Amino acid sequence: MHHADLIVRNGTVITMDPQGTRIPEGAVAVVGDRIVALGAAADFDGWHARRTIDARGGIILPGLINTHTHAAMTLFRGLADDLPLMSWLNDHIFPAEAKLNAELVGLGTQLACAEMIRAGTTCFCDMYLFEAAVAEAARDCGMRAVVGEVLYDFDSPNYGPLQKGFEYVAGMMARWAGDPLISVAVEPHSPYLCAPGLLERAARLADDHQAPLVIHVSETAAEVARIQAQYNATPVAHLAGLGVLGPNVVACHAVVLTDADIALLQQHDVKVAHNPESNMKLASGVAPVPDLLQAGICVGLGTDGCASNNNLDLFSEMDTAAKLHKVHRLDPTVMDAATVLRMTTCDAARVLGLGDTIGSLEPGKRADLIVVDTAKPHLTPMYDPVSHLVYAVNGADVSHTIINGSVVMAHRELLTIDLETVLKKVLSVKF
Amino acid sequence: MHHADLIVRNGTVITMDPQGTRIPEGAVAVVGDRIVALGAAADFDGWHARRTIDARGGIILPGLINTHTHAAMTLFRGLADDLPLMSWLNDHIFPAEAKLNAELVGLGTQLACAEMIRAGTTCFCDMYLFEAAVAEAARDCGMRAVVGEVLYDFDSPNYGPLQKGFEYVAGMMARWAGDPLISVAVEPHSPYLCAPGLLERAARLADDHQAPLVIHVSETAAEVARIQAQYNATPVAHLAGLGVLGPNVVACHAVVLTDADIALLQQHDVKVAHNPESNMKLASGVAPVPDLLQAGICVGLGTDGCASNNNLDLFSEMDTAAKLHKVHRLDPTVMDAATVLRMTTCDAARVLGLGDTIGSLEPGKRADLIVVDTAKPHLTPMYDPVSHLVYAVNGADVSHTIINGSVVMAHRELLTIDLETVLKKVLSVKF
Repeated sequence: MHHADLIVRNGTVITMDPQGTRIPEGAVAVVGDRIVALGAAADFDGWHARRTIDARGGIILPGLINTHTHAAMTLFRGLADDLPLMSWLNDHIFPAEAKLNAELVGLGTQLACAEMIRAGTTCFCDMYLFEAAVAEAARDCGMRAVVGEVLYDFDSPNYGPLQKGFEYVAGMMARWAGDPLISVAVEPHSPYLCAPGLLERAARLADDHQAPLVIHVSETAAEVARIQAQYNATPVAHLAGLGVLGPNVVACHAVVLTDADIALLQQHDVKVAHNPESNMKLASGVAPVPDLLQAGICVGLGTDGCASNNNLDLFSEMDTAAKLHKVHRLDPTVMDAATVLRMTTCDAARVLGLGDTIGSLEPGKRADLIVVDTAKPHLTPMYDPVSHLVYAVNGADVSHTIINGSVVMAHRELLTIDLETVLKKVLSVKF
Repeated sequence: MHHADLIVRNGTVITMDPQGTRIPEGAVAVVGDRIVALGAAADFDGWHARRTIDARGGIILPGLINTHTHAAMTLFRGLADDLPLMSWLNDHIFPAEAKLNAELVGLGTQLACAEMIRAGTTCFCDMYLFEAAVAEAARDCGMRAVVGEVLYDFDSPNYGPLQKGFEYVAGMMARWAGDPLISVAVEPHSPYLCAPGLLERAARLADDHQAPLVIHVSETAAEVARIQAQYNATPVAHLAGLGVLGPNVVACHAVVLTDADIALLQQHDVKVAHNPESNMKLASGVAPVPDLLQAGICVGLGTDGCASNNNLDLFSEMDTAAKLHKVHRLDPTVMDAATVLRMTTCDAARVLGLGDTIGSLEPGKRADLIVVDTAKPHLTPMYDPVSHLVYAVNGADVSHTIINGSVVMAHRELLTIDLETVLKKVLSVKF
């Protein structure tokens, strides 16, 4: 007799494996932190499972992966909106951020993890200050995370001068080496806040540790103009010239790109984190994602921080991504639902260098999976589960979230987070 | 002692009245179908209420109004996506619609009402076939609706030849005259499916009954080119030339407009129903809404049908509307949250000719209101309720829905719809 720690059954399994396998009335078996088997639910009748989750005819799919966010900015959601970028940053966001400390960043990250788990996100890539607190909070919440302290030319409220920043990152890498949930990236903020020496050193550190190098690139036309004036090159060409680009680089935003930039990204196998809602809300522009995909560049979706979105719901982000590019290209066939779902699962995993670990439901992969409850008016009938996932589901439809084999939400109840206490603490903070 | 049938208390009241009044820790009192008083919750301590709803510190606001949809198309949600427009229509939607009858349209409308009530929508303007069934279904569900049988040059599967169509509409007007929930509009499909004689006759009928004239106008560039070739005028100019435009006209979509079109719409006080998600998904284009608003034209939001959206959630539609125009204009200040919320409440009511009846919380208006539960991670903290309503809330956050003084959803449970039976019936239909 086969044994499993957990069997999730009685749902349409969308595996997101390379063949795009879907299993109607399927099941997924988990032992420890791994998926051990998938198949028709009936095939598991003879199995003994310590715990069974009934998907009630819903959808079983890989947990969603957020390739770019600033989790603790949940604390600033709705603090200021609809403003010119510089007024928004200088008059509202930066003054609020000046009051941050490790404790508050940890609290904001717990809040973000609660929101993400409830919306079916099982892994996020973070860039912020006080990232040690982010790592601790994510681990405590049972979330998978790629964390990275932001590095820039000026002193940081966290680590102080830049030299200490590199030490801080190296310390985090040592601290979390081999951790089942947390990995550490090197995250220079952007070409416009990081001198060439910083960028080169960051790239060496990332290479030495086979870690992702996460960086904002070409988010706005103003940024591109600034780099062009300073270095006589686009941000992408500037990074290429410094030898920084490579398959471990995650270029966040990548909105304002030339054809030559796209060729460089392709040539160096750079990954892109696409944040459509934030790019829309800040009026940054529309990233040329159909062109990136056409060039074979791996693109993942991200929400960016909550101050410019204002939520961490990747289902809503998928919907927006699919629609934005259709209207921007005046072509309803671009960014079809299956493509967009890959950008939030298997392709997102590749963006973060975790393609062998997560992003699809396959035997041997980590058990990061979610259940979507489709017994609802807005999800009935269901002609195509993938269409629903992109165009009709929202985060509130997720009933169960499983990360690394552990059930962290069941029937929408968070099992790893004392939500009431977190909300109470958040409400006691004044910015 | 004051008596009320219902008091909704302990929430921030966003009235959407002309002064933009907000009442922190407020309450709304209802007698019969009307709002009788609003104020600080403490002011109602001496009142006797037959029923009290505790908003638990959340948001109390007018029910949302969907200015353009085809409710029964819930049956076709996700049937086909990501296709060229003509293939989508001819190979998928039209063949499915050919199988419709009054019973199925009624069922699809019940499904739509369930989804809308759960997402805080209390009123919708519909255009479809078999609208008598839509009216019955909406009334049975306790929803407010403006219904209108679609009229066009060719025979209808419902009423047959056009002459019968006008009789059908007149019959509906007689049937529903004075109904507290249902009103009837005249709804010629569009300038490209309706000959000038039909349009003129429809306009006369609407004028005679002081009813809205609801019509698709300038949704796509192809449609504009077709009318231009046929009549040597834009669709808007063509309608103006026929004497059809007036303050009771609801121009749905209005995507492809010239400056002269906008001037004509303004001059005739035509109302516009804006459907950003559908326009994006079908790649129709971006309506010039900031220009319409600048010209003083009243614009309401709509979802369009579920086959091109694919949901009826006006919270998600508000989020998309606010962001789409920001990125399209490359200006983060356009379509601020307060403007977008007006487009879904008070301005939407004016679009449908119901500005004196619904759309804001004011004494004497019908009691159409909703409660948003904000005790959730993605809505905590709350600096600005209006920001949250547009950028962070989704339909699943609505806890209570009240229409015409009746509680139709409490604690997310539908009280007027046997949801299980509706879902079962829907699942038994094959298209």
